[in-house]
Amino acid sequence: MPKHIDVTELILRDAHQSLMATRMSIEDMIPACADLDQAGYWSVECWGGATFDSCIRFLNEDPWERLRTFRKLMPNTRLQMLLRGQNLLGYRHYEDHVVERFVHKAAENGMDVFRVFDALNDIRNLKCAVAAVKAAGKHAQGTICYTTSPLHTTEQFVAMAKRLQDLQCDSICIKDMAALLKPHAAYEIVRGIKESCGEDIRVQVHVHSTTGVTLVSLMEAIKAGADCVDTAISSLSLGPGHNPTESLVEMLDGTGYTTSLDMERLLNLKRYFNKVRPRYAEFLSNITGVETEIFQSQIPGGMISNMEGQLKQQGAGDRMQEVLEEVPRVRKDAGYPPLVTPSSQIVGTQAVFNVLLGRYKVLSGEFADLMLGYYGETIGPRDTALVEQAAKHAKKQPIDIRPADLLKPEWQELRTKAIEQKGCDGTDEDVLSYAMFPQVAAKFFGTRSEGPKNLGKDPNAKVVIAPLPSVVTVNGVMREPVTYDVKLNGTTHKVTVSAS
Amino acid sequence: MPKHIDVTELILRDAHQSLMATRMSIEDMIPACADLDQAGYWSVECWGGATFDSCIRFLNEDPWERLRTFRKLMPNTRLQMLLRGQNLLGYRHYEDHVVERFVHKAAENGMDVFRVFDALNDIRNLKCAVAAVKAAGKHAQGTICYTTSPLHTTEQFVAMAKRLQDLQCDSICIKDMAALLKPHAAYEIVRGIKESCGEDIRVQVHVHSTTGVTLVSLMEAIKAGADCVDTAISSLSLGPGHNPTESLVEMLDGTGYTTSLDMERLLNLKRYFNKVRPRYAEFLSNITGVETEIFQSQIPGGMISNMEGQLKQQGAGDRMQEVLEEVPRVRKDAGYPPLVTPSSQIVGTQAVFNVLLGRYKVLSGEFADLMLGYYGETIGPRDTALVEQAAKHAKKQPIDIRPADLLKPEWQELRTKAIEQKGCDGTDEDVLSYAMFPQVAAKFFGTRSEGPKNLGKDPNAKVVIAPLPSVVTVNGVMREPVTYDVKLNGTTHKVTVSAS
Repeated sequence: MPKHIDVTELILRDAHQSLMATRMSIEDMIPACADLDQAGYWSVECWGGATFDSCIRFLNEDPWERLRTFRKLMPNTRLQMLLRGQNLLGYRHYEDHVVERFVHKAAENGMDVFRVFDALNDIRNLKCAVAAVKAAGKHAQGTICYTTSPLHTTEQFVAMAKRLQDLQCDSICIKDMAALLKPHAAYEIVRGIKESCGEDIRVQVHVHSTTGVTLVSLMEAIKAGADCVDTAISSLSLGPGHNPTESLVEMLDGTGYTTSLDMERLLNLKRYFNKVRPRYAEFLSNITGVETEIFQSQIPGGMISNMEGQLKQQGAGDRMQEVLEEVPRVRKDAGYPPLVTPSSQIVGTQAVFNVLLGRYKVLSGEFADLMLGYYGETIGPRDTALVEQAAKHAKKQPIDIRPADLLKPEWQELRTKAIEQKGCDGTDEDVLSYAMFPQVAAKFFGTRSEGPKNLGKDPNAKVVIAPLPSVVTVNGVMREPVTYDVKLNGTTHKVTVSAS
Repeated sequence: MPKHIDVTELILRDAHQSLMATRMSIEDMIPACADLDQAGYWSVECWGGATFDSCIRFLNEDPWERLRTFRKLMPNTRLQMLLRGQNLLGYRHYEDHVVERFVHKAAENGMDVFRVFDALNDIRNLKCAVAAVKAAGKHAQGTICYTTSPLHTTEQFVAMAKRLQDLQCDSICIKDMAALLKPHAAYEIVRGIKESCGEDIRVQVHVHSTTGVTLVSLMEAIKAGADCVDTAISSLSLGPGHNPTESLVEMLDGTGYTTSLDMERLLNLKRYFNKVRPRYAEFLSNITGVETEIFQSQIPGGMISNMEGQLKQQGAGDRMQEVLEEVPRVRKDAGYPPLVTPSSQIVGTQAVFNVLLGRYKVLSGEFADLMLGYYGETIGPRDTALVEQAAKHAKKQPIDIRPADLLKPEWQELRTKAIEQKGCDGTDEDVLSYAMFPQVAAKFFGTRSEGPKNLGKDPNAKVVIAPLPSVVTVNGVMREPVTYDVKLNGTTHKVTVSAS
């Protein structure tokens, strides 16, 4: 009997987040739910920070209602979410009671599996959320953010898994958000965890496909004993997304491992999302190929575009190479944090400051907080002189306690403020939406009654205009072009033609 | 010490053949040659039937001159070509002396490695070409076309490898043109060959990436002892193309295997071809994602589009499903040939005939020839009743000898005819071009002096026009559209706009 491998489908969360800027509307998701529910997945990932944010920011859609819709339409499959530990779905640390309340309400509305991570891999930032998930009787998945540095060794990741196991996590996730996890490392880490935590510990592997090697990494992880892997239906896969679900199924043929996935359902889903994808053409990622440069620079693609934008704003677009060389130095000074939201932005912005203004002449407030321990603990020591400078700059002392321990109870205040917003319905769900994204939620409450928007467009109604040369040939005669403004679906296009 | 794995780079032949209709001009290849030559490849594949054909059909370029250019610009790297056995680069069997002459002239002009295959895996069709390569003192690579059927077993492929070894081939290639080679099968076949033919036999693996699983197959093949694998620089990889060279290099990190490739050179090449690719936008493959359906249908993507075209011409576009179900039956009746040029076209066309006109009511001439053994031997028995019908239809008897044994010496006649063509320079190279593609070569001889064409276009001069809705809004006012003909770079575009 081949060993059964579980699969988590990412199409409703990370796949469209990575490939189409998290813009897929619930209307385009609903027709896929029956096949998703019947295909035999262990879980369907469908909720997280970006999807929540996008719902209220762009789609005028209540993310809690989205969750309830999934629960109703997928009664046979676990629903899974990504939770930023003490940050929940936001960008700051929340006081423990807010964390507990959020987890409780997510569970009540239908969530089954909570993948809990912290950008610095500081276990203390996961503790409260994991305990809340356990208290709700749901599946708590403790997460290791995978990265590479002189300090990140197999032993170190295995030790972190052991600490997650000690927190009573139901499973361990290795989360490789930058596609850095190579096949050999995948094997070693999964094997190490199994040997250290016991063969019964459930290990799940999440990889992106940017570097092109990670389907091989999944194969090696499975050989090392991984129980569950993450993939996305092929029509929303590859590039900065994930490995295709159908390829995973076929890859295992004859290997002694098998998924229980129904290929007919998967191909239904493939064809369905093949039709959905072109409707979101304007949001699709520009990156479609493979980027192995990340292995050398260790800087994820999204972070590079952020830094490029910052440099261009300062009229210093030509200094990217210096910034790329500065990032590893800043990362070392900060104790080698993984580069993932928000640490990637903090390190990247400081590197830009260093290049433009001189090394550490100016510290960003966030970088000072990172140096002072206000985001948590890093794997390596932080540069002592810089910590002193940060303390002076920020006028506060470095801490070594859990950042959330400094917070005072805040639920009542959040509730009071939320209820003041026009359109807030007074439920805990609305208070939590407000707690995560105060301004965006307040605006959303006011327009909620208009109902969800679908930003997808009929691809046949789309005009794509690339720059024209200054002179065009019409029926063989060179003519000066005439320029027209074409407004289509709300966007104005300049079209330059000569009349025939 | 990690085991060294050799790599063949496909960018100058199969990569642009699979992804941009073989249209890349020599002008766009030359700037890459220094990096290709210095990167540390075992060989660079750069010549084959389609590139030869495309040179004289579309690019007004002498393929022999292209070969000499490569030889001059890549003095340190083996040049490799794909040769269709007794068919050489054409679509019919050539008499032995033509085969010998072709191989001799290819070697003389700079070719080092000859990958020799036959669409039916009939060893007799490889024999003459392999002997000619050996006589020229070059590397003869005997090729197994990989396919799946009830008769294609690991044992059968291993037995074929043994027969290729007996022909004194310098290496064995497993050629997976449809991306059907799964990881487990790759391991089993390579291991089987090594165990049967000796660990010293050199095994090379060629896979396409259409199904998304074959980088994993390369990993397994390497573990089983494969000595050399084929990849393409990432900017012309994936989809119906191949696995990215950079990903292969990175995948092996820490595994006990290594390539000697210089990553800096590879990334130079990546950036270079990233700029070349958009210039050929109009020729780029529509398929960019993963297609695992091939595992079920066993029908390669290119063959499906051919059959769709045939059905549509007959106004029967809705009968594709019937044809897809008919193909495996026709393939079985024909003795399970691999589906690769020309057998894929022959089987596909007959399946279309069967659906439109009734099963075997009409036989194509090529299908009759296939049934009668005029393409060679198939792995399975051919349907007896159909062989009889084919004999009646074609008015000839089935054969079991090597098809080329029926041919009379033809060199002198080919030479005489070639020299009659205007512009033929009387060299053996010109005679061979004429022998491969008589009409196309004759036309090319006449225009050769005009020099090579570059079909690439400045992507910034490109207008992409998608169908417009019947009414457009200009500055908020609905207006009837006006249609213009815009002729740009030789193509006429209909542009429908309202003047602002």
